[in-house]
Amino acid sequence: MTRLPQPRSHSLAELAARVGGRIVGDGDVIISGVGTLQGAGTGDIAFLSNSRYRALLASTRASAVLVTEQDFEHCPTNAVVVTDPYLGYAKIADLIYPTPPGEAGIHPSAVISERAKIAPSAWIGPLCVVEDDVEVGAGARLGPSCVVGHGTRIGANTSLVANVTVCHGSLIGERVIIHPGAVIGSDGFGLAKEGERWIKIPQLGCVRIGDDVEIGANTTIDRGAIEDTVIEDGVKLDNLIQIAHNAHIGEHTAAAACVGISGSVTVGRSCTLAGGVGLAGHLELADNVHITGMSMVTKTIKEAGVYSGGTPLDTNRRWHKNSVRFKQLDDMARRLSELERRFNSLVEKV
Amino acid sequence: MTRLPQPRSHSLAELAARVGGRIVGDGDVIISGVGTLQGAGTGDIAFLSNSRYRALLASTRASAVLVTEQDFEHCPTNAVVVTDPYLGYAKIADLIYPTPPGEAGIHPSAVISERAKIAPSAWIGPLCVVEDDVEVGAGARLGPSCVVGHGTRIGANTSLVANVTVCHGSLIGERVIIHPGAVIGSDGFGLAKEGERWIKIPQLGCVRIGDDVEIGANTTIDRGAIEDTVIEDGVKLDNLIQIAHNAHIGEHTAAAACVGISGSVTVGRSCTLAGGVGLAGHLELADNVHITGMSMVTKTIKEAGVYSGGTPLDTNRRWHKNSVRFKQLDDMARRLSELERRFNSLVEKV
Amino acid sequence: MTRLPQPRSHSLAELAARVGGRIVGDGDVIISGVGTLQGAGTGDIAFLSNSRYRALLASTRASAVLVTEQDFEHCPTNAVVVTDPYLGYAKIADLIYPTPPGEAGIHPSAVISERAKIAPSAWIGPLCVVEDDVEVGAGARLGPSCVVGHGTRIGANTSLVANVTVCHGSLIGERVIIHPGAVIGSDGFGLAKEGERWIKIPQLGCVRIGDDVEIGANTTIDRGAIEDTVIEDGVKLDNLIQIAHNAHIGEHTAAAACVGISGSVTVGRSCTLAGGVGLAGHLELADNVHITGMSMVTKTIKEAGVYSGGTPLDTNRRWHKNSVRFKQLDDMARRLSELERRFNSLVEKV
Repeated sequence: MTRLPQPRSHSLAELAARVGGRIVGDGDVIISGVGTLQGAGTGDIAFLSNSRYRALLASTRASAVLVTEQDFEHCPTNAVVVTDPYLGYAKIADLIYPTPPGEAGIHPSAVISERAKIAPSAWIGPLCVVEDDVEVGAGARLGPSCVVGHGTRIGANTSLVANVTVCHGSLIGERVIIHPGAVIGSDGFGLAKEGERWIKIPQLGCVRIGDDVEIGANTTIDRGAIEDTVIEDGVKLDNLIQIAHNAHIGEHTAAAACVGISGSVTVGRSCTLAGGVGLAGHLELADNVHITGMSMVTKTIKEAGVYSGGTPLDTNRRWHKNSVRFKQLDDMARRLSELERRFNSLVEKV
Repeated sequence: MTRLPQPRSHSLAELAARVGGRIVGDGDVIISGVGTLQGAGTGDIAFLSNSRYRALLASTRASAVLVTEQDFEHCPTNAVVVTDPYLGYAKIADLIYPTPPGEAGIHPSAVISERAKIAPSAWIGPLCVVEDDVEVGAGARLGPSCVVGHGTRIGANTSLVANVTVCHGSLIGERVIIHPGAVIGSDGFGLAKEGERWIKIPQLGCVRIGDDVEIGANTTIDRGAIEDTVIEDGVKLDNLIQIAHNAHIGEHTAAAACVGISGSVTVGRSCTLAGGVGLAGHLELADNVHITGMSMVTKTIKEAGVYSGGTPLDTNRRWHKNSVRFKQLDDMARRLSELERRFNSLVEKV
Repeated sequence: MTRLPQPRSHSLAELAARVGGRIVGDGDVIISGVGTLQGAGTGDIAFLSNSRYRALLASTRASAVLVTEQDFEHCPTNAVVVTDPYLGYAKIADLIYPTPPGEAGIHPSAVISERAKIAPSAWIGPLCVVEDDVEVGAGARLGPSCVVGHGTRIGANTSLVANVTVCHGSLIGERVIIHPGAVIGSDGFGLAKEGERWIKIPQLGCVRIGDDVEIGANTTIDRGAIEDTVIEDGVKLDNLIQIAHNAHIGEHTAAAACVGISGSVTVGRSCTLAGGVGLAGHLELADNVHITGMSMVTKTIKEAGVYSGGTPLDTNRRWHKNSVRFKQLDDMARRLSELERRFNSLVEKV
């Protein structure tokens, strides 16, 4: 394990106070690192969020463990009792490994338009390109080799990690994190047919991204065709996700890697899309809809709930036999109904 | 809505003439923008391509609407009657928002080989790298931070938007658009086994891309192993698509995001692959084959038509019950046949 | 076909010796290129690895062909008989098209931290960014526009082709090849819920990559949350693959394009994952597990073997009929069982 940020030490009491936890044990112990139950050593704090792994408590060498009320009695070391140990861990890890204060200014190798407005407290890293009329807010940070197209607005304390491309006219909120290789505001895939040829539909809308959004590595978000593509506050997108033109993603929705969202789709708030899910064009998901991995969604979903698709894994040999039958399903269903009918009329006769 | 390009005003008569449309209403009205039926305001032109949305006509505030013969009577404002309003819109939007004339020359921060041949009317943007023996045609445009490997040829009026990587020896046609993050000419995934180890097969072919091709953000097209990977004229590729070595994509075929095309696949002309479709290696698709979203194609398709795969979405609870049965399908099919057989012989007896 | 590297000529005898092959024919013939059986000309060597294509031998114009014992009698020209012609081809192609010796040094346009340690024989290409405390080993090569974050170690003879982003603290072995657009060490997708909001879990682990690994274009490998994400020696990853935080990929495992591997997954050694496969979080694959294309894996697999999922392609019309029945499968299974039961009791009565 190689942890890069410099940790900062705290007493367990300080950390517990931060997460509203109750200490069972010694609040004066100094915590200067985090670890898993198996990997933690002296001075580290670990967490147990799933009681299924309770047995790991016995052998942990952590100096403290975040646990729930129902697990703390099994904790052989100092415990911080909280309702959600994983959430508690998130906050404590952030205290122990604070984001180092960033530099401010513009690296001399960056290419910045004279018409760009960069807040004095912002940082523009080496070999960035910032075009005309871009606004970069206070404390915002462009890592190395980012490209920001003209007319884009980047909110305060937003971070483009490295090698991010933001196309012209994008509006990005505050405290947004955009990971390397992500592309914001590329042209939507808009085409009309003229005979056999495809004619490009000019993509005239923009991308609007709210506050506290996170966008994963190599994820792509296309600009709108006429109106804008919209990512609301608090949305979290993993890596290699495609968001097509004029999609609208509601607040606090999260999508795991390799999700594909087609054009003009509306996703409600607080939805979750597991890895590899695909949403067909122009449909809507209500709030609190949860789609399990690799499902294909082809119709609007009006009710909150958990939805699934796909087939279970099997040995290749058995799968071959069964998947062939998939193509006979309708025939089987008809034959079954027919057999029931004939059987019932036979029974009546007998 | 934030539209970035400066619009150019036209009379409705001028616009109608461009698309061969018939004006019903006032041809002198000045159009200086586009909008959706709901979003358009005074001075905007909208379109109705699908009669299902005809009800939106009544409340539109657009100054003109592109409609078909069968819808124009419901249009409360000036109408331009055309056979394909979406195609008409594409052409009119292009008139109203023309691509601004690009700069020519080489940005001083670009790193250009002395052996590269750049047409005087081409533009090489900031922080581009152009290696030996690259040729960039007239009017071509390399946006910021593009990398073009040695021996590559980029045709006239082709645009690499930003952060595009084109590996050595690629041949790219005219009027091609390549969106940010796309990678052209990376090594194919060619491996031979030697004991437990994989040995790399040198990837000696190139990528050849025709004219009028569009390649989406973060899409990857691998170079050929011995012969070339070929993308023919007019092909349109969306974002996050993988095209493996020695694939051959026929003219005017379009693929939506997240499509994966394996090695040595041949796709015919005027095919469409919807989002998330996967094609297994070495197969062929005839011309005019259309594959619906997320389908897995494992065999050659010799006849034009629409093909599909996958399972429908359901509530997670019902899906669990049904998907378990998928693994019993062959057993069910056999039992059904057996029951039919036994039933029929019973009926004969009774 | 456009082959870029300068070929180097060898006698057939030299090439055969390299691969331990037996020459049937003239060992003095000079070979100066490679080709497919159909595309090869005079001076080229081709190979036949699959006897199914044996008919192509008759018409080849290659000067020599790598063949197996069972095919060589059908070879009309000089043959090199080997046990694995594809492997032999890999080695011979590497002899004929050797990687040209790279430059050494640092391009003046690169931005290099004074605290970076670059081996004198390494090459740092134009417009690279190399941050503090990076170590670049002997003979390593950073192509144009790569970004290497602080504290990263890049082993000897490793190549970052172009536009690669390696985030801070990554440990990369020797002879690794990373293709354009790949992102190594981006933050994992770690989130805890607090009310409706997502709270970011600091991603404190790193990425550790062994020797002889190859990583495809636009592939993403996230850093670990607490401990590291690990890619062992000899792993081969194609393009557009997602590897989530704390995944552990065993030696000599290969994954084709568009594979998604979720967090904390452990994949054994010598596994193969075909294109588009998805692995759900926290599961394990034993050694020598092979998953066919686009399968969804949701459970641990403890036995070596070939596993599959998904449904076969069909015409859209038939697929519609059959896929609807998928949602009735459990009902059909119950009705079938019931009918069997009733039939059997009827038979007893009759």
